[in-house]
Amino acid sequence: MSKPKVFEKPNGFKDYLPEAVSRLRAIELNVLACMRSWGYRQIITPTLEYYDTVGLASSTPNERLFKLLDKRGTTLVLRSEMTAPIARVVASLLKDEPLPLRLSHHSNVFRAIEEEAGKEAEFFQTGVELVGDGSAEADGEVVALSIACLKAAGVRDFKVALGHVGFLNGLLEAGLGGRPEEQQALKECLLKRDYVGYRHVLRSIDADERFKAELEAILRLRGGREICRDAERYAHSQAAQESLRHLCEVWDVLDAYGVNEHIVIDLTMFGNFSYYTGLIFEGYASTLGFPVLSGGRYDKLLATFGRPAAATGFALATNRIMEVAEDDVRERPHRVLVLYDRKHRAEAVRTAMELRNRPGFEVESRFVGENAANGLKVQGYDEVIRFL
Amino acid sequence: MSKPKVFEKPNGFKDYLPEAVSRLRAIELNVLACMRSWGYRQIITPTLEYYDTVGLASSTPNERLFKLLDKRGTTLVLRSEMTAPIARVVASLLKDEPLPLRLSHHSNVFRAIEEEAGKEAEFFQTGVELVGDGSAEADGEVVALSIACLKAAGVRDFKVALGHVGFLNGLLEAGLGGRPEEQQALKECLLKRDYVGYRHVLRSIDADERFKAELEAILRLRGGREICRDAERYAHSQAAQESLRHLCEVWDVLDAYGVNEHIVIDLTMFGNFSYYTGLIFEGYASTLGFPVLSGGRYDKLLATFGRPAAATGFALATNRIMEVAEDDVRERPHRVLVLYDRKHRAEAVRTAMELRNRPGFEVESRFVGENAANGLKVQGYDEVIRFL
Repeated sequence: MSKPKVFEKPNGFKDYLPEAVSRLRAIELNVLACMRSWGYRQIITPTLEYYDTVGLASSTPNERLFKLLDKRGTTLVLRSEMTAPIARVVASLLKDEPLPLRLSHHSNVFRAIEEEAGKEAEFFQTGVELVGDGSAEADGEVVALSIACLKAAGVRDFKVALGHVGFLNGLLEAGLGGRPEEQQALKECLLKRDYVGYRHVLRSIDADERFKAELEAILRLRGGREICRDAERYAHSQAAQESLRHLCEVWDVLDAYGVNEHIVIDLTMFGNFSYYTGLIFEGYASTLGFPVLSGGRYDKLLATFGRPAAATGFALATNRIMEVAEDDVRERPHRVLVLYDRKHRAEAVRTAMELRNRPGFEVESRFVGENAANGLKVQGYDEVIRFL
Repeated sequence: MSKPKVFEKPNGFKDYLPEAVSRLRAIELNVLACMRSWGYRQIITPTLEYYDTVGLASSTPNERLFKLLDKRGTTLVLRSEMTAPIARVVASLLKDEPLPLRLSHHSNVFRAIEEEAGKEAEFFQTGVELVGDGSAEADGEVVALSIACLKAAGVRDFKVALGHVGFLNGLLEAGLGGRPEEQQALKECLLKRDYVGYRHVLRSIDADERFKAELEAILRLRGGREICRDAERYAHSQAAQESLRHLCEVWDVLDAYGVNEHIVIDLTMFGNFSYYTGLIFEGYASTLGFPVLSGGRYDKLLATFGRPAAATGFALATNRIMEVAEDDVRERPHRVLVLYDRKHRAEAVRTAMELRNRPGFEVESRFVGENAANGLKVQGYDEVIRFL
C-alpha cells in the first residue's frame, strides 16, 4: 500500500474554488431564505452520529456508510442524509415543542463510493422536514415548496415527478406475495429506470399472464391527473386504491398553488429510501439525467426515535443544482488593488479602509518593497490605486 | 459495551436549534462579508483528508484526530483545522495562480476529546489565509482584519495579543540549549497561562541564576509598544532581536490601521500550532477565558506541500463568538399563520404565497380538518389569518 502524495485528497472528495463557492453559497442562501419565508427554520446537527441510532435509521446500505470507532469502541458514522438526524432532534431536544414542526437544513452528507465511479463521496443538501401533519395538504405544501426552491436556486426548466410507494407495493404484493426476491428485482430495475431490464425480469417470472401484462402496463402510467384514473384498473387492493385517491388530492392541492405545469405523475417511481411510506417525489432539470431533488413521506420513522408522528420532507442536491442553475444575478464585485510603499502607508491604509465600506467593493492592499515598484502583476482588478 | 439510546448523539457533538443557528449564521455571513471586502475569497475543502498529508501537516496531536480507513486501507482523518488543507489547495489546484493569494473559509473542524471534558469535538471556524507575502505589512493586515471581523461579528469588548515565536525560542535556546524536556515543560505552562506552574518548573531547573531571573522577568513583558524596548535586554540572539524589530514594525502598521487600542504585546505567548514561525496572535473577549481567535505566520508549511511560500492567517472560534457577541441587530421576522379548510384552500394558499414575497415575512399555512377548527394551538405568531 503506497502512501498518498502530498497534494492528493481522498477518492470522491472535492475542493471548491472561489467561483464555485460563490455560486454554491448563492444557491444555498436563496433556497434557505425561500424555506424561511414558508416558516421553515434552520437547524444544524453533528457530522458524526451513532451507527446504532441514526446510522441504521438512515437506511443507507452498510457498504456506503463511512464508519469509525469512538474512544469507547462504539461505532460512529458520518451522516449519510439528514432526515434521520432531524427525526432524532424532533424526538429529543424538541420533544416538548408542539407539532407541526417546520425545519430546514443545509448540510454536507457522506456516502462511500466505489473506486472507479466518478461520483462524489461528500456532497451538499438543502432540505426541509415537515413533522406532525399527515394530510395531503402537507404533501402538497412540501412539493410546492420544492418547486419554489428550485426557482429560487435559478433552475428554469424542470419537472417534479409524483409517485406513491403504496401503489406499486400493493400491486406487487397482490401478484407476487411471498416472493420478495422477484419483487426486489423488479423494483431495482424501476429505481434505475431500466425499463428494458424490467421487461426482461418480467418475462423470466413464472406468474399469471394477465398479472404480468399489468406489470408491463404500469410503465405507461406517467402523465397528468388522468393517470390516477387510468391506474384504477390495476389497483386491486384497498391500499393501492387509497394511494391513488391520495395522489389525486395532492394534485388538487398543487393546483391551488398554481404549480401543476411542473408536475408529472409517475407510478413507476419507487423512492430511494426504505423509510418512505406514502407520497414520494423527484425533481428533474431538463439538462441533467439525475434528480436534483427528492423527497417523500415517512410516517413510521419518528416512532423509531420514540415520538410517533407523520412526516414528510425533501432535499435538494445542491451540487447538481449548481451545474444546471442559469447564470445567476449575483452582483459582480468592484475589485480594487491599493499599492503602497512604507512612506505612504497611513494614507493608503486609510483609503483602503474607506473603500471597503462601500457595497460590492473588494479591496486588497499590497505593500511594495522600496525596490519592487516596477513589474508588479496587477491583472484582474477593476481599479488599481497607487500610493508610491 | 452498551448500545447508545436512540435519542443520543456522540460525546462532544451538538445540535443547534433555530435560534442558535440564526445567531451562528449571522456571525458567519457578516464575518465572511468583511473578509470579502478585504479581498479574501472563500474556498471549501473536503471534511476528510489523508492522514499522511494534511493530517500530519495539521500538527494536531495524534490522540485528538478522528481517524478512519478508506476502502483501500489508507488512513483518513476528519480535518482538525483549515490551514493545512488550504496549503494543499494552494500547492495543487491553485498552483498556477500568482501570489499573493487571499483566501477565506467557514468550516466545521474536529478534535477528539476526553470522556469527561465538557468540550466540543466538532466546532466552527471562520478564517483567512494570506499566502505569498512575508512582510510585516502582511502580518499587520491580517491582525487588522481579525479586529474588523470581531467587530463585524458583534464582539464589542476585546483585546488581541501579539507575540513572536522567535523571541521565546531564542531565549530558551540560549540558556537551555540541548535540554528540550525542560524547554517543553516551561512552554506548556505558558501555553496554559499557568504562571504559578511556570515559576515552579523554573525553580526546579538547574541553570545559571541570572538566566533564570530573565525567564522569570519575561512574565512581565506584556503591554504596549514599550514592551519591545523593555524586552531588548533579554534578546541575546540575533533571532530574538529580529523578532522584536519585526514586532515593532507590525505595531506601526497597526497604528496606520488605527486599531492599536485593541492590541497588547505579550512575549510569553507561544502559539498552539507547531507550524508557526513568526508573529502569532490571539483575541480575547472581556467575558471569556478562552481565545475567540488565533492566528500566526507559518512560512515553512507550504514547502511541505511542494510550493514554498511565506504565509499567515487566523481563524475565529465562531461558536465561542456566538456566546460573547452582543445581542445582534437581526431583524425580527413577522411570523404569520394561515389556517384554512378544504373549501377555502385556493384563497388561503394564494394569500400565503403573496405574503411570502414580503421581506421579513415567515408564513406557515396549516390545513384544519373539517372537525378540528377549535382548540388549535396558535401561539408564537404575530398574526393569524383564518380562512375557515
